[in-house]
Amino acid sequence: MPYVNIKITREGATPAQKAELIKGVTDLLVRVLDKNPATTFVVIDEVAMEDWGVGGLPVEAYRTSLKSSS
Amino acid sequence: MPYVNIKITREGATPAQKAELIKGVTDLLVRVLDKNPATTFVVIDEVAMEDWGVGGLPVEAYRTSLKSSS
Amino acid sequence: MPYVNIKITREGATPAQKAELIKGVTDLLVRVLDKNPATTFVVIDEVAMEDWGVGGLPVEAYRTSLKSSS
Amino acid sequence: MPYVNIKITREGATPAQKAELIKGVTDLLVRVLDKNPATTFVVIDEVAMEDWGVGGLPVEAYRTSLKSSS
Amino acid sequence: MPYVNIKITREGATPAQKAELIKGVTDLLVRVLDKNPATTFVVIDEVAMEDWGVGGLPVEAYRTSLKSSS
Amino acid sequence: MPYVNIKITREGATPAQKAELIKGVTDLLVRVLDKNPATTFVVIDEVAMEDWGVGGLPVEAYRTSLKSSS
Repeated sequence: MPYVNIKITREGATPAQKAELIKGVTDLLVRVLDKNPATTFVVIDEVAMEDWGVGGLPVEAYRTSLKSSS
Repeated sequence: MPYVNIKITREGATPAQKAELIKGVTDLLVRVLDKNPATTFVVIDEVAMEDWGVGGLPVEAYRTSLKSSS
Repeated sequence: MPYVNIKITREGATPAQKAELIKGVTDLLVRVLDKNPATTFVVIDEVAMEDWGVGGLPVEAYRTSLKSSS
Repeated sequence: MPYVNIKITREGATPAQKAELIKGVTDLLVRVLDKNPATTFVVIDEVAMEDWGVGGLPVEAYRTSLKSSS
Repeated sequence: MPYVNIKITREGATPAQKAELIKGVTDLLVRVLDKNPATTFVVIDEVAMEDWGVGGLPVEAYRTSLKSSS
Repeated sequence: MPYVNIKITREGATPAQKAELIKGVTDLLVRVLDKNPATTFVVIDEVAMEDWGVGGLPVEAYRTSLKSSS
């Protein structure tokens, strides 16, 4: 009975893409660990850009800094 | 000082029902483990239906599949 | 299909107490929100004392500070 | 930069199986959402059987109850 | 490659304050554990007041109860 | 009443370093958001190297791949 939580930045993932993630992760757990899909939960969290940090910066500022340094 | 996180699908839980969950979980931790309610946190996350998967499907599609297979 | 995560400090909770937490939380979700127990997951994490902080201190140091200040 | 957390019961998943989960989830995020693998984290938590509940029971008791009721 | 999740009640934290949290936590992990900021993620969750409980009450009711008891 | 969860790979962080993380994060929340330290929780999870993936690989294999490609 696995529980999987996927956190991604909110950048327009569609319901169809989310359904693909749910199916893909569940199939993976069935294939690798023989888990029962009926008791495999997948929860997706979309996180606003201003709420996700990397490199000490909110993600948009971080991406800008990468571009300007290259 | 327990921390409890409750994730449910977003299907109209009312503030009164959430307050009942908060009270119920806190009372349980006091009763079973003698925890101090003043340092017991309960955080409720309501998850959009399209963001919750089970059986390899988003939850609404999963419920539909159960009905049609019965 | 709720998912509940309970984090407590590791201070000797017994399997019987954990079973009581699992049953209590599940019953609560059935009673308040009419959830299906068969798809209600409860995961308990016991956290080592040195890994839990409150008041800016690891929990044991925090408890000592409360006693000495009273 | 996704973050994925996979929780499974501790039942002997091998390092090779864990590596397969890590690869599979990362590939999925690359394929479906065009994410950068270098900033895709996957964290696996193995949860002791007594710490995972379903159907209001610790998971072993739950499995036993399913068998005896069938 | 640390992952940090900060949960706070939704009470008007500004993007600038969030950026300060992201920077502060990342700097801390660099300083204390020599972590690489480029692989340090910080995710902030703002939780609605009705979804956060303490002392067995939603947080607003709890604050009111503290005032009236003092 | 913030709740902060810090996940790091298990690579020998000492109790003193953990205490420094707890103090640093708590001070940050007090300074930036005027939070009350007495209701600020910090939970540190050390994750085994084989349970943390990045770049589609367990972290040790990933580090090795970076070295050999440079």
